[in-house]
Amino acid sequence: MSAFALHPRLEADTAFVADWTLSRVLLMNDARYRWLILVPCRAGLVELYDLSADDRAELVEEIARAGRMLKALTGAAKINTGALGNMVPQLHVHVLARNPGDPAWPGPVWGHSPAEPYRDTDRDAFITQLVNAR
Amino acid sequence: MSAFALHPRLEADTAFVADWTLSRVLLMNDARYRWLILVPCRAGLVELYDLSADDRAELVEEIARAGRMLKALTGAAKINTGALGNMVPQLHVHVLARNPGDPAWPGPVWGHSPAEPYRDTDRDAFITQLVNAR
Repeated sequence: MSAFALHPRLEADTAFVADWTLSRVLLMNDARYRWLILVPCRAGLVELYDLSADDRAELVEEIARAGRMLKALTGAAKINTGALGNMVPQLHVHVLARNPGDPAWPGPVWGHSPAEPYRDTDRDAFITQLVNAR
Repeated sequence: MSAFALHPRLEADTAFVADWTLSRVLLMNDARYRWLILVPCRAGLVELYDLSADDRAELVEEIARAGRMLKALTGAAKINTGALGNMVPQLHVHVLARNPGDPAWPGPVWGHSPAEPYRDTDRDAFITQLVNAR
């Protein structure tokens, strides 16, 4: 069995935030949203049902943790969570903060319009907030 | 604390499939997709982190079960899972089967285009398949 390796598309589109118990936590490089991606660090996963039940229980706690963090840091009106994988098959879960008036509201952000990359200083400042959040 | 009641919009857009341990399972009335919605039967929930940890562990098992069922019944290329709630605040989780060439592929189905209702006989036949799936 091969080792876990992050899909190149996820590598290209995100910045590293942290490794949690199960998941690598990434920040999507789109300054219009506060948008995390959780990637369970197991090789060969595509669907949520590919995880063991224990890993699934851990993942849903990490999804909840990410949502609480984003809510606390941004005061967002709504958290959106999604696991699609139509373009990048490696199992990954989007958790992001939404507000009325954001570019895709009230629709989904996926496939809506091209990302607007962060300025490095803004990205690094938000990652610092995330790393320090409890 | 008020009792659980299904949001009128979910009631209007779906048909009842089953009550599982935590969630009411609904079939979205859109014949273009095989599309389930899981609604945890607890009053006052909006975000995944509003659930207790025990209920969250149950919910993620029910999400996995729904995904496996859809995969087995349809042979779909991909399962999509999402909890958005930008328009209907009551916590609900979409689990649906996707295939290259479906109307929204590879984008998300949410907000893509108006639903195309099932014929009653087709809807009832698929619900029977779901109820009998193991």
